[in-house]
Amino acid sequence: MTNSFYPPVRTLMGPGPSDVSSRVLGALSRPTIGHLDPLFVGLMDDVKRLLQATFQTQSALTIPISAPGSAGMEAAFVNLISPGDTVIVCQNGVFGGRMKENVERIGATAIMVQDRWGDPVDPHKVEEALKANPTTSVLAFVHSETSTGVRSDAKTLCALAKSAGVLSIVDAVTTLAGIDLQVDTWGADAVYSGTQKCLSCVPGIAPITFSSAAIERIQQRKTKVQSWFLDMQLVMGYWAGNAKRAYHHTAPVNAMYALHESLIMLEEEGLAASFERHQHHHEQLVAGLADLGLSMAVDREWRLPQLNAVCIPEGVNDADVRARLLQEFDLEIGAGLGELAGKQWRIGLMGYGSNAVNVNRCLTALATVLGR
Amino acid sequence: MTNSFYPPVRTLMGPGPSDVSSRVLGALSRPTIGHLDPLFVGLMDDVKRLLQATFQTQSALTIPISAPGSAGMEAAFVNLISPGDTVIVCQNGVFGGRMKENVERIGATAIMVQDRWGDPVDPHKVEEALKANPTTSVLAFVHSETSTGVRSDAKTLCALAKSAGVLSIVDAVTTLAGIDLQVDTWGADAVYSGTQKCLSCVPGIAPITFSSAAIERIQQRKTKVQSWFLDMQLVMGYWAGNAKRAYHHTAPVNAMYALHESLIMLEEEGLAASFERHQHHHEQLVAGLADLGLSMAVDREWRLPQLNAVCIPEGVNDADVRARLLQEFDLEIGAGLGELAGKQWRIGLMGYGSNAVNVNRCLTALATVLGR
Repeated sequence: MTNSFYPPVRTLMGPGPSDVSSRVLGALSRPTIGHLDPLFVGLMDDVKRLLQATFQTQSALTIPISAPGSAGMEAAFVNLISPGDTVIVCQNGVFGGRMKENVERIGATAIMVQDRWGDPVDPHKVEEALKANPTTSVLAFVHSETSTGVRSDAKTLCALAKSAGVLSIVDAVTTLAGIDLQVDTWGADAVYSGTQKCLSCVPGIAPITFSSAAIERIQQRKTKVQSWFLDMQLVMGYWAGNAKRAYHHTAPVNAMYALHESLIMLEEEGLAASFERHQHHHEQLVAGLADLGLSMAVDREWRLPQLNAVCIPEGVNDADVRARLLQEFDLEIGAGLGELAGKQWRIGLMGYGSNAVNVNRCLTALATVLGR
Repeated sequence: MTNSFYPPVRTLMGPGPSDVSSRVLGALSRPTIGHLDPLFVGLMDDVKRLLQATFQTQSALTIPISAPGSAGMEAAFVNLISPGDTVIVCQNGVFGGRMKENVERIGATAIMVQDRWGDPVDPHKVEEALKANPTTSVLAFVHSETSTGVRSDAKTLCALAKSAGVLSIVDAVTTLAGIDLQVDTWGADAVYSGTQKCLSCVPGIAPITFSSAAIERIQQRKTKVQSWFLDMQLVMGYWAGNAKRAYHHTAPVNAMYALHESLIMLEEEGLAASFERHQHHHEQLVAGLADLGLSMAVDREWRLPQLNAVCIPEGVNDADVRARLLQEFDLEIGAGLGELAGKQWRIGLMGYGSNAVNVNRCLTALATVLGR
């Protein structure tokens, strides 16, 4: 017979999932009710409204997709892009490459704008690419590159898209609630995120929002969206509210309880206060790392406070250090991804996990393991 | 400020989600650990092995998709079918229609075999369709039609597919753990389910299994799978086990704890005992409904014990009855779907919820509300 699984209590300071508060875990385990229950429909309305505030948008098409952030990315791409379209994709880390995969699987063409992993997307290159490709229909970029800890200038990139008359798709998986993201003011057209980063909710749900221009693009499609599950015209019907609600799929009811609770915690704190808290503990961490002789991999201006890329010192074995942190301190930090494997650590201070206790725990553990 | 959500304790006797035991809810709310944590990888191995036992298959490609049953359906279709293929789709309820949508969004042709809603799929019609369409590559049908409460003869239909040299896709969303499903013995090639039916787990995850012939079909594809998120070649890498494990997406960690626990409960009871329990309480319910003068909508031979379609008597207002059951008894039963709306109720006795207490609660509540 198989044994039940009792996980240890880890401190999650990798690139996600982040620490989930007992308040959110408590909400998660409340009794399941039906996804068509009038009370659940009320909860869905709350979640939509709270997500609007978090994305800083008025858009009615602001909902949680019932699948992980990767499916959120796919939802943005398959709804806004049709076969034969031209899409400019900015790549400065792992997730730009995934965007390219999404574009090509639609039968569209991806024009890549490459920047060094560890640098932000260069708006000048984007401007040139937009000029050189006047039939472009969408500009796609990652706001917070989870693989490198780099922020790009989403406001400027969205403005470039708008002045070229193309829609923007913005990956905000690691952004949401961690750093400022003004969807309406900046004019972003499709923005998706995940619940397991700065929302400090359990992984598995992808909040997403579409602008009115994006909705218009969806409604004017000449071909059906290739994914039935992610077709926003159907999902819109499901999330339309009580009277008009059309059955689409069975919502992950308990995960929605958890998302609801995590969004309430954010509402109580306030978005600006959440940004400040992330910045504050980031600065604490950076100062402490400097005391240990560890340097940051990203230029100060473009560092993500919620995900700190740290250079692994010469002669230090990456895997050994992370294994000891996990085994001796129940502390998870992130490895480098792709070409950064073995060269960098990624230390997350996301959502609920962005606090002084975690900063100190991480610094103490690193000092011990590195013998500094 | 938004209030936290405290759901009432409902008795869930609709078409799903079904009642979730406190044991599974307890597992759900254990502390989140990283999806790359060695302990989580061990849990994933358990889940795969327990799902193999539940599907009665030896296939190594037996995994939980990190999204609802609808995404499980889409995963089966987009991986096995390529643009230009011919697919025979059997429809005897809502979900056959959804299969047609999936086929057409791939750019393939769906040949429909129609049966009356409330009847099983007719194997003779399928045999004729296979003969008339020799270029068919896949036969798709629903084993347990959730919209009608009807079982079809999956063993015979899979055998027809095999003798015609085509692959079979089997919708087992409402089947799994409720009635017998011998994936290997019957030779089914792609079978998907959901966690929120007879597994009595929270909604949001889709167990799926592919035969060796199906895996070969996937590996020999000439075009990429149109969904990046559901591409089994990538998902296979993610679920391949410790050493070879490739990052794909962030697994819904806590939902996996819950699935693990629900599969352990099934292992403890035994699959055969679970089938017997479903049958036993189904018979209790049918007898009790007969005493109330209520008749079943489906012929005895094809009734699903886990989902009981009941004819709504003349003069009884469907919506009023269900609203009173919910408000006065915290009891959810299902409405009719599509053309059966207002004509039938669907009473679920699924998984943990298939017990004598629920049978009696439902009969008592119906007797009161109907005044019988």
